[in-house]
Amino acid sequence: MLESLKKTVFEANLALPKYNLVTFTWGNVSGIDREQNLVVIKPSGVSYEQMSYEDMVVVDLVSGRTVEGTLKSSSDTPTHLELYRNFPSIGGIVHTHSRWATIFAQTGKSIPALGTTHGDYFYGTIPCTRMMTDEEIGGDYEKETGTVIVETFHSRDPQQVPAVLVHSHGPFAWGKDPLDAVHNAVVLEEVAMMAWHGMVLCKEGIDPMQPALLDKHYLRKHGKNAYYGQKS
Amino acid sequence: MLESLKKTVFEANLALPKYNLVTFTWGNVSGIDREQNLVVIKPSGVSYEQMSYEDMVVVDLVSGRTVEGTLKSSSDTPTHLELYRNFPSIGGIVHTHSRWATIFAQTGKSIPALGTTHGDYFYGTIPCTRMMTDEEIGGDYEKETGTVIVETFHSRDPQQVPAVLVHSHGPFAWGKDPLDAVHNAVVLEEVAMMAWHGMVLCKEGIDPMQPALLDKHYLRKHGKNAYYGQKS
Amino acid sequence: MLESLKKTVFEANLALPKYNLVTFTWGNVSGIDREQNLVVIKPSGVSYEQMSYEDMVVVDLVSGRTVEGTLKSSSDTPTHLELYRNFPSIGGIVHTHSRWATIFAQTGKSIPALGTTHGDYFYGTIPCTRMMTDEEIGGDYEKETGTVIVETFHSRDPQQVPAVLVHSHGPFAWGKDPLDAVHNAVVLEEVAMMAWHGMVLCKEGIDPMQPALLDKHYLRKHGKNAYYGQKS
Amino acid sequence: MLESLKKTVFEANLALPKYNLVTFTWGNVSGIDREQNLVVIKPSGVSYEQMSYEDMVVVDLVSGRTVEGTLKSSSDTPTHLELYRNFPSIGGIVHTHSRWATIFAQTGKSIPALGTTHGDYFYGTIPCTRMMTDEEIGGDYEKETGTVIVETFHSRDPQQVPAVLVHSHGPFAWGKDPLDAVHNAVVLEEVAMMAWHGMVLCKEGIDPMQPALLDKHYLRKHGKNAYYGQKS
Repeated sequence: MLESLKKTVFEANLALPKYNLVTFTWGNVSGIDREQNLVVIKPSGVSYEQMSYEDMVVVDLVSGRTVEGTLKSSSDTPTHLELYRNFPSIGGIVHTHSRWATIFAQTGKSIPALGTTHGDYFYGTIPCTRMMTDEEIGGDYEKETGTVIVETFHSRDPQQVPAVLVHSHGPFAWGKDPLDAVHNAVVLEEVAMMAWHGMVLCKEGIDPMQPALLDKHYLRKHGKNAYYGQKS
Repeated sequence: MLESLKKTVFEANLALPKYNLVTFTWGNVSGIDREQNLVVIKPSGVSYEQMSYEDMVVVDLVSGRTVEGTLKSSSDTPTHLELYRNFPSIGGIVHTHSRWATIFAQTGKSIPALGTTHGDYFYGTIPCTRMMTDEEIGGDYEKETGTVIVETFHSRDPQQVPAVLVHSHGPFAWGKDPLDAVHNAVVLEEVAMMAWHGMVLCKEGIDPMQPALLDKHYLRKHGKNAYYGQKS
Repeated sequence: MLESLKKTVFEANLALPKYNLVTFTWGNVSGIDREQNLVVIKPSGVSYEQMSYEDMVVVDLVSGRTVEGTLKSSSDTPTHLELYRNFPSIGGIVHTHSRWATIFAQTGKSIPALGTTHGDYFYGTIPCTRMMTDEEIGGDYEKETGTVIVETFHSRDPQQVPAVLVHSHGPFAWGKDPLDAVHNAVVLEEVAMMAWHGMVLCKEGIDPMQPALLDKHYLRKHGKNAYYGQKS
Repeated sequence: MLESLKKTVFEANLALPKYNLVTFTWGNVSGIDREQNLVVIKPSGVSYEQMSYEDMVVVDLVSGRTVEGTLKSSSDTPTHLELYRNFPSIGGIVHTHSRWATIFAQTGKSIPALGTTHGDYFYGTIPCTRMMTDEEIGGDYEKETGTVIVETFHSRDPQQVPAVLVHSHGPFAWGKDPLDAVHNAVVLEEVAMMAWHGMVLCKEGIDPMQPALLDKHYLRKHGKNAYYGQKS
């Protein structure tokens, strides 16, 4: 069942340690088959070295029930499902505790667009969610984590800003498929690292990049007038 | 004698350079056999490359005397023994001068719980001990190092906060066995690194995470209601 | 056509990930044949692992047209050409988003000469350009990027300061040939990293190095009285 | 001639990239034969990959002349000689531009003893020299670099503090032999990294460690009452 997607999700999970985004099992990637409304995700608490692609767990998007797999799915599965339900354009999701993004999440600060590295991938600020309420934390916590992310994007397009910081927690990133989501998670880490150092160097405060430059860089890589790379 | 524990302690010591927690010989791991009251520990000043599992030294918990082994045990042995005597729930101890934890120890500052990475492993602040007195330093120094750690935990459960910073020195971490102690030492380094960067970014001060979120994350991984990972 | 230069440019591009100057495809190196006025440059958006030397694209210096190659040249090609046209002494150019140099570029700050590591390679401050105007960004953007760099060097010798920071973007470095340009890009990253940490440590401000020491170090490696290395 | 010392000096030079202390050729190690008053040192500007032990250059301590070797000795040779002449207890010297020590050198700040990692190797502050005068820079510069280091140690024992920061330049470290000098250069980098982070975290200033603790740690590893390691 979903052999190809399982292999992709497995490969994307292995990319997390390769890109130095995770310590131990602190991360997970999922992918979705939009036709069947099935999500493939990493099992919970299994190390990347011991995992095979057949350990990936298949979960039903609507019911949230495991459809295939002998292992428990990631404890973050309800967050992934909530994002897939509300962001119909995305095909893969990554959650990690990668250092630089998590540093921002722990301060409750968003990551401003300070330069073209950011603008090539994220069309503006990468937002940090509000703090969750005690009710949300005490309730269906992982699902509510997804809900607060969706709330944060009520006036943003998740395709144009493919990542978020969950307050006091860490980042989620997404993309058109699982590998694209990992790609965005790597970029997030780079721009967070560089933003942190710019903000600390400029004690008096730092301005976001010019809107015209952000437009130029984002649109040279995305949309119908893009001209970066070999695609014509 | 204690072949299996020696191999585990040896393996746990080799994990220190693997996880980039030590420079040269600046670290040691021990494990305890609670039935026989015997502690197995790294020999003093021996490099990780040259060491074999048979070089591990066996020390009596009560008397502190070497029971087996031709090499001198780590100079930090009396600290380990003091912790085993006072924290009956722990089975392994790690001492390193890992960078980020040591940076905090050298400032005398504790590491606040700023996010869920911290809360998944440490149920609150990771404390820094008080400075030792000149009498303690001039007396049975390594044993007194253990005593000041125990004093720091008079109102804390060492199982719930499995690490400490010794003022002007560096971290000790522990766990249910030697490998678990190393695991906690790795997490300590991660959370120290992220806390440092959060504290520097927030010049106006930074608040610890919400108590409800700390409870949620610590308890989803520990205790009778834990649901993270594959254990049922 | 230009086999030797293609191989050199290819090798210089592979040096970017080797020296940890790039993530993904975020960098490119070019070289010029001054007799034929032809520039060899990396293709756009192609990963370093998949690239062969035959993928290098040959571009005419004057017309900017591709003379050989089936792939599109780097989207930054017009910037490279503008620099070759205006800096006749240079033979190779590197553009990256290397972290430390980009951090400075994103703050709009130049990198002061704080010590002899800097002075051995850069005869004074490494400047950051002014912000580009909306007209420049909306016009022939990549060419205008070159123009603003040239403007920044109206009172500087590009041989003596072989790098620049483009405001809100990242660094360009150059040299007598493509490998020399990469060498300078590596040095730029080192001096940017060290300058950042000096500037943050000295909250009250930090002075550039003494002019006499800068002269000494730059001139002991460059010009007719140089005595460093094996060249006599 | 001096085959054994050449091999040791060669090996010690190769340890510099191994321990991540150098970029390109930015470092050199020497060793001395005190009976013959001959110094063996790395050749100038030769890369570590291309070097063989036979390329090491032999220099006369008194005259400073090359006694054996077809390559030019390191341009820093006169500094090494000046230190060997004035510090009779040392047998090896390292010069690098290692990042953390150089950051301190570029700010003109000494490295305070903030914890036991420092105290295990350095008996107090690691000093930064004064700035050199224009006359010293314009004169016999490399020899004067040694002179200003010697001046900095007029009230210090170079055995007890085996490293120095040269203002606006970088570190020199030394030891009883070339490999011991490299060992101290590695420790210097560690303590500089940790001191920087402590000083930045403590905006209000940071105190050096207690004198009693410094005594304890330095003397438990050095001198007649040392008890660390396997030596009895």
